[in-house]
Amino acid sequence: MAKAGTGSPNEAVGTYAGEQLEEVAVADVLREMRFDGRGLIPAIVQQQGTGEVLMMAWMNEEALRRTLATGTTWFWSRSRSEYWNKGATSGNMQQVRRVLVDCDADVLLVEVDSPGPACHTGHRSCFFRQLEGGLPAPQAQT
Amino acid sequence: MAKAGTGSPNEAVGTYAGEQLEEVAVADVLREMRFDGRGLIPAIVQQQGTGEVLMMAWMNEEALRRTLATGTTWFWSRSRSEYWNKGATSGNMQQVRRVLVDCDADVLLVEVDSPGPACHTGHRSCFFRQLEGGLPAPQAQT
Repeated sequence: MAKAGTGSPNEAVGTYAGEQLEEVAVADVLREMRFDGRGLIPAIVQQQGTGEVLMMAWMNEEALRRTLATGTTWFWSRSRSEYWNKGATSGNMQQVRRVLVDCDADVLLVEVDSPGPACHTGHRSCFFRQLEGGLPAPQAQT
Repeated sequence: MAKAGTGSPNEAVGTYAGEQLEEVAVADVLREMRFDGRGLIPAIVQQQGTGEVLMMAWMNEEALRRTLATGTTWFWSRSRSEYWNKGATSGNMQQVRRVLVDCDADVLLVEVDSPGPACHTGHRSCFFRQLEGGLPAPQAQT
């Protein structure tokens, strides 16, 4: 968990899930990224430190650019067909700490500091409902 | 964080992100779920306990049914157009602990126990790359 102190104002590349992160240039990632037919990519928003998954929303290239430029989360609303700066109305802005991209560049993981609720229902996380039943007992470990 | 002990073999409904979870019947969720034009819904896979986001893949209704029936993760592979039982080949199966659904029923969060790597590259998580540069300094807290 030790982080090398570089004295740089930019945070040094750290770890995720116990592994050292690789740093990739935004321009390179944008060339590699696999947006869907509507030009969108899923963006998972996770609270840094606690690991709480707060929400998932959709970014296009411009929403990612705005997110990186402002340090707050911008998404594309599929229902309203407009850009959406999370928390701009409610006051519950999300401060972006890191943006990770997955192995095949078709999902983003946005680590944020979100002091307030992330869900429009007022819940801390959009994931406040659990599917009941249907799961078998865990298999015995061998 | 205290959990009421019910003595039931099924795990009592617990908390997520510091809030009590609501329990919803699978049949009700299936009626409500908003699959996309291909019949798919994003499924975020998170390691229970650590909060590591391991991967994101796609489920259709049958993949969700298989996941709930077997207690291991099933997805629909868009590139191969076939069902995919994560880890069946590599041995890195994911044991499902809970399945959460988001506020508008178009994203799943699957909490698992995944002892091994989740990424086909051998990484623990598919999110092993960080976008460099582009983020402004964090705003001062007022």
